[in-house]
Amino acid sequence: MIKARVTVTLKNGVLDPQGKAIEGALHALEFPQVAKVRQGKVFDVELDTKDRARAEADLKAMCEKLLANTVIEDYTFEIE
Amino acid sequence: MIKARVTVTLKNGVLDPQGKAIEGALHALEFPQVAKVRQGKVFDVELDTKDRARAEADLKAMCEKLLANTVIEDYTFEIE
Repeated sequence: MIKARVTVTLKNGVLDPQGKAIEGALHALEFPQVAKVRQGKVFDVELDTKDRARAEADLKAMCEKLLANTVIEDYTFEIE
Repeated sequence: MIKARVTVTLKNGVLDPQGKAIEGALHALEFPQVAKVRQGKVFDVELDTKDRARAEADLKAMCEKLLANTVIEDYTFEIE
């Protein structure tokens, strides 16, 4: 069993209204020092295999095909 | 300027229908080896300060008050 964490974030320059809303909410609480917030997604994936090289190739394919929209998002993953 | 990444994940035992849907979609593509998917959130936060100890305390407070629902979610953060 291989565990991996995939992190998907918006590319620089892509508007992030959700991040902006959170930034505003943090200012409205008591955190004026917050300069910027960007929101992304994280996927914890468990793979039923022991082959790390295969897992790496599969995770890349999953990101390209489903987990990330590579037009506007970047992805990284790390295998435990 | 301090940059931090906050990761919010569902606690074990909390149902994750979104993760289940992604798991199903990955099976329907060509990834039968996917055993489990859990989805979480990530926040990239920039703080206008140089005081790391203060930043750490502030990030903890932000997570407790806004970024995570600590009834059903866990959070971690790392400061760059």
